Amino acid sequence: MTRVLVTGGRGFIGREAMPLLLERGYEVFAVTSTDRPNGMPGVTFVHADLRDGEAAAALVAKIKPTHLLHLAWVTEHGLFWESPDNSSWVSGSLRLYQAFAEHGGKRAVSAGTCAEYDWSQGKCIEDTTLLEPNSLYGHAKLSLYRLQRALFEEAGISAAWGRIFMCYGPHENPKRFVPSIVAPLLRGEPVKCPVGERQRDLLHIKDIASAFVRLLECEVAGALNIASGEPVKLADVARMIADKLEAGGLLELGDAPAASDEPLAFYGSAARLSDEAGWHPRYGLEEGIERTIDWWKQNP
Amino acid sequence: MTRVLVTGGRGFIGREAMPLLLERGYEVFAVTSTDRPNGMPGVTFVHADLRDGEAAAALVAKIKPTHLLHLAWVTEHGLFWESPDNSSWVSGSLRLYQAFAEHGGKRAVSAGTCAEYDWSQGKCIEDTTLLEPNSLYGHAKLSLYRLQRALFEEAGISAAWGRIFMCYGPHENPKRFVPSIVAPLLRGEPVKCPVGERQRDLLHIKDIASAFVRLLECEVAGALNIASGEPVKLADVARMIADKLEAGGLLELGDAPAASDEPLAFYGSAARLSDEAGWHPRYGLEEGIERTIDWWKQNP
Repeated sequence: MTRVLVTGGRGFIGREAMPLLLERGYEVFAVTSTDRPNGMPGVTFVHADLRDGEAAAALVAKIKPTHLLHLAWVTEHGLFWESPDNSSWVSGSLRLYQAFAEHGGKRAVSAGTCAEYDWSQGKCIEDTTLLEPNSLYGHAKLSLYRLQRALFEEAGISAAWGRIFMCYGPHENPKRFVPSIVAPLLRGEPVKCPVGERQRDLLHIKDIASAFVRLLECEVAGALNIASGEPVKLADVARMIADKLEAGGLLELGDAPAASDEPLAFYGSAARLSDEAGWHPRYGLEEGIERTIDWWKQNP
Repeated sequence: MTRVLVTGGRGFIGREAMPLLLERGYEVFAVTSTDRPNGMPGVTFVHADLRDGEAAAALVAKIKPTHLLHLAWVTEHGLFWESPDNSSWVSGSLRLYQAFAEHGGKRAVSAGTCAEYDWSQGKCIEDTTLLEPNSLYGHAKLSLYRLQRALFEEAGISAAWGRIFMCYGPHENPKRFVPSIVAPLLRGEPVKCPVGERQRDLLHIKDIASAFVRLLECEVAGALNIASGEPVKLADVARMIADKLEAGGLLELGDAPAASDEPLAFYGSAARLSDEAGWHPRYGLEEGIERTIDWWKQNP
């Protein structure tokens, strides 16, 4: 049996990835830093703060996973961009990777970010677009990408790095874009969408999770965008939500100027993910938004 | 009294920096990973492997230095470029910095490297030249530079990062350039210098050490080249050595092609170091080489 250690097991992506791993017959261990009880049959939850490298190493020595899906990081809305915790996550992750290599690890997949790219580039292609983060979060992820690549190459471990673009779906932080439109409209309250002209690359969180599981199961190495490849106007997303809720009158669209370093369209090439990893999204934007609205109706 | 913790206390730079720190009235603690006895009056040596983050943190908690001079790294000749130890040094160093911030640290200076720059640029200027390492060593140092900058900014700690170019002087690894010419000529053996046309930026190790001490004493922030600013042909250095040893007949100069990514001239701008930190080298190349030859005569 293949044993996978999932970090960030209670996170936005982790919770969607675990059922997929169980379906595929993995023995699933999930690390969480919260003290809440288990909650997912078939998954063994272990409690650890992975920013503490020695705790991370001890955990790996005990579980001896063959596969690693490393999703955990500081994610506090708004604050994660410049949180000093980013450097604790780099040091803790490096120790986690070293221990994985020392204890028989075979395949590692980690969550990277579109913030590793120079944002001004618009369309991001893995091996072409300039890597020039403008946040500590982006620097930390890019640093870790380069260091883990070298560490795993040296140890003969196959590793991929999935650069996430914009996610949405169940359990999303209410302050983020899609819930910030859905929730007020569901309550019958007016809502403003001031950034409507910006085009972003959205994927439903279940697709993001399935892309990570796909990466875990193949041998593709290096960085791959976890992206749709198709930028959409945020105004169109907001309008789609309002239409589905028959609440168009409550939506006020605006066109606030973007920050000077923020491009109007920012999206990832999905070519490596589709051509080399053989992965394609299951949900179109419309179905993804419908399912997300349904979830928020049930979890107001 | 100002208390400084020097890492790499037994290293090429560290051993030259400590007498300067003692002269200036610092209380000096030096970390070393070797078990050899003390050997420098006035310096308190402590034994620790700083790649182990918890050991690093425990050390700082005990010593509570106000100043940190972080010079230690993997330096094994030839092997350090791609050693997986580079990532242990990133994780250990981050933990060291965090502990320094937590225990009242005020000023931190660390050793960076010219290998953080895109080598093809030739002349490297701190805030202008593209940072694009082509080695794991360069990536690791650049990663650490960015992470420590953010971490120290957040903690309100003043920090500088000295990017070292080419060093030479007493105690240098015999396989490196200057000793590889001096030692055979001193023994009366022939020596080849196949890379004579390359121009590099050389500083005597006592100058490198004094530049780091200067950085520790001022408030200049960010990256500064520890460089002469003046590239010299390696053939001219080899000829200078042979002339001083009256052994010109034993020297064979060549002009082997450089690697495709290696520029003929590679050197650092010394403007920030001189204008902002007010530091200038004490030794010209000729005096530095003479002193180095004298040292090798006494330590054959």
